[in-house]
Amino acid sequence: MSARELVRVGILGGGQLARMLALAGAPLGAKFLMLDTDANACGGQVAALMHADYRDHDALARFANQVDFATFDFENVPADSAHWLAERIPVYPNPRALAVAQDRLAEKTLFQSLGIGTPAFRAVDTLAELRAAVSEIGVPSILKTRRLGYDGKGQYRLRNVEDVDAAWVALSGGRDSASLILESFVRFQRELSVIAVRSRSGEFRHWPLTRNWHHEGVLSLSLAPASVTDTMTAEALNYAKAVADQLDYVGVFALELFEVDGRLLANEMAPRVHNSGHWTIEGAECSQFENHLRAVMGLPLGDTAARGYSAMLNWIGDLPDEQAALAIPGVHWHDYGKSSRPGRKVGHATVCGHDPDQLQSRLQRLGVALDRETQVAPALGVMRSSRIA
Amino acid sequence: MSARELVRVGILGGGQLARMLALAGAPLGAKFLMLDTDANACGGQVAALMHADYRDHDALARFANQVDFATFDFENVPADSAHWLAERIPVYPNPRALAVAQDRLAEKTLFQSLGIGTPAFRAVDTLAELRAAVSEIGVPSILKTRRLGYDGKGQYRLRNVEDVDAAWVALSGGRDSASLILESFVRFQRELSVIAVRSRSGEFRHWPLTRNWHHEGVLSLSLAPASVTDTMTAEALNYAKAVADQLDYVGVFALELFEVDGRLLANEMAPRVHNSGHWTIEGAECSQFENHLRAVMGLPLGDTAARGYSAMLNWIGDLPDEQAALAIPGVHWHDYGKSSRPGRKVGHATVCGHDPDQLQSRLQRLGVALDRETQVAPALGVMRSSRIA
Repeated sequence: MSARELVRVGILGGGQLARMLALAGAPLGAKFLMLDTDANACGGQVAALMHADYRDHDALARFANQVDFATFDFENVPADSAHWLAERIPVYPNPRALAVAQDRLAEKTLFQSLGIGTPAFRAVDTLAELRAAVSEIGVPSILKTRRLGYDGKGQYRLRNVEDVDAAWVALSGGRDSASLILESFVRFQRELSVIAVRSRSGEFRHWPLTRNWHHEGVLSLSLAPASVTDTMTAEALNYAKAVADQLDYVGVFALELFEVDGRLLANEMAPRVHNSGHWTIEGAECSQFENHLRAVMGLPLGDTAARGYSAMLNWIGDLPDEQAALAIPGVHWHDYGKSSRPGRKVGHATVCGHDPDQLQSRLQRLGVALDRETQVAPALGVMRSSRIA
Repeated sequence: MSARELVRVGILGGGQLARMLALAGAPLGAKFLMLDTDANACGGQVAALMHADYRDHDALARFANQVDFATFDFENVPADSAHWLAERIPVYPNPRALAVAQDRLAEKTLFQSLGIGTPAFRAVDTLAELRAAVSEIGVPSILKTRRLGYDGKGQYRLRNVEDVDAAWVALSGGRDSASLILESFVRFQRELSVIAVRSRSGEFRHWPLTRNWHHEGVLSLSLAPASVTDTMTAEALNYAKAVADQLDYVGVFALELFEVDGRLLANEMAPRVHNSGHWTIEGAECSQFENHLRAVMGLPLGDTAARGYSAMLNWIGDLPDEQAALAIPGVHWHDYGKSSRPGRKVGHATVCGHDPDQLQSRLQRLGVALDRETQVAPALGVMRSSRIA
């Protein structure tokens, strides 16, 4: 008996996002093929994995022949490769959306054109332009590469004007010109993210806003739903919808925001499922992973309402004690099947509660059980003072 | 970079249960190897699949060398093979539990020895014994093979004493002796099931009782939590716990019960995750699939409480329209990746609601949208009259 012909979804990148997409997509009737530069990418434990460079057109052609649609686990796939693929099979999100999200300057320029507040920024191609930008924007500010930055990589913080030369050398690699952006350093009250999804027909849905805490540039903790005024929620959602509509975006994306004195400034968008949306697996009616696939596959979007209250803790470097974690009710474990390495995202846990008090109590227990009291502390602090997030 | 050494779980059988186990187990840090007699078994779409006969000791040895534990998607694995494996690696549930559950006579004898009510039954090895059994138990009654029966297969219903010869021929295949059992036909008010899990250390947990409806011997519809009195719930759970403790059972199992005039009679047990527990994927804090693996892997058991109210509809033969189903809020789709075939379980959907009214309304919409009004009717009938199940 031959197996049925399933919907074949290709994913560029085979990391934990691809892995969680495949786990969410199998029940929808999808079969996955991932393409990654690492033959041991962890997505390969749950789906077929092709080992190749994203620039290898022969490999891309084989990939395109085996899938009905393509999407991304990794946004830094070369835009050329995305364009090449999009001429052969449907690619969601479309290559223009990917290209905008890959380039901090294009992204912030888009935000600005849509009336979305951003930290002050200037394009910087030379040391002279950096000096001029610093004199306009001031310090503290952050010099960033326009492309290929993630998790705090490709960034240099200028604390005073004397840092200009060191910053230039660090990010230009000593060349005469480089594609950089200088951004004003924002003293925010909170970091928030909107996780939203847009269907092929333009339907827009969003999960409740998430509050995030980073540690050394990497997401450490998320709490959802964040406690946000209706006005601010409306502002955040208007921003997210405006960006998605402008880009004719299909699939899930994240818009990261800073809350500054009651206003929201857009930091960046991620054109894919996002770490700050991992809580939706157990904490929402339909997860970001399932809804991304529903959008890509042309299925109706699922309900994005929260189920209770959730906190997500990232495991960076290595995994804490699974036994101790799972002994606490409401704790859900996500081991990505990756080997340990400093700074590497190797898993996460989501703690769910019916109400903020139950979540707080469980999160506190988890912090103690795993000796991660510092990691859970920011969430417990706000929950003690303001009920949630 | 080499991949990490994960916990390796072997599954005998590679059907939809193995598939859903693998999807639930990957986040726990497990890697799966399935063994199936069908090279295209649908579990192979999400995990490694070995194609071999369950009696092939060379294949079993290769299987045992590649896994840390073994469990079952299919209870009719030859008991000899289970014993052979259990001498080499831990096998959960243990081979004795499997052997008892494989044999309707051993199973009902066990129930009886534990004080658990059953329909009247007699062992039948010959035509003469069948005649004697019919005269004792009466008609209507059902002649069944002791082994390898499932989904109504291997059964013959005797409506009157003249059916004895036809029943014997049908199930003995014309031989002089056969391993059969005659059971009194029970006019039950409801079919219920207990889905429960027992850990390696003997901890016992159960999900809320489920009410089930069969069509042509195959499960068609489940509703959970069933509306059952505290007394009856206690009786059902005492039965399930007694069986699990007696068998030193590890993992998830189902105990199918008939409600007859306020009493519960045990019909059969399934030594594995069970179709009537599929609703727990979305409808409970921790699903039967995750808890089975937690038990097998020696992890703490997860919370078995229901999240709202759920109805599960089996898709037999072929899949209805996924688009139409997913347009209804609270509907979750499970395509097993199998090709269509009459009588074959190819998928299911679970409809969730926060309360019985919401579930009823969504289930009604689903029945209309998929032209499956007959299938959903029994659940809607009881929900209209008694709120739930």
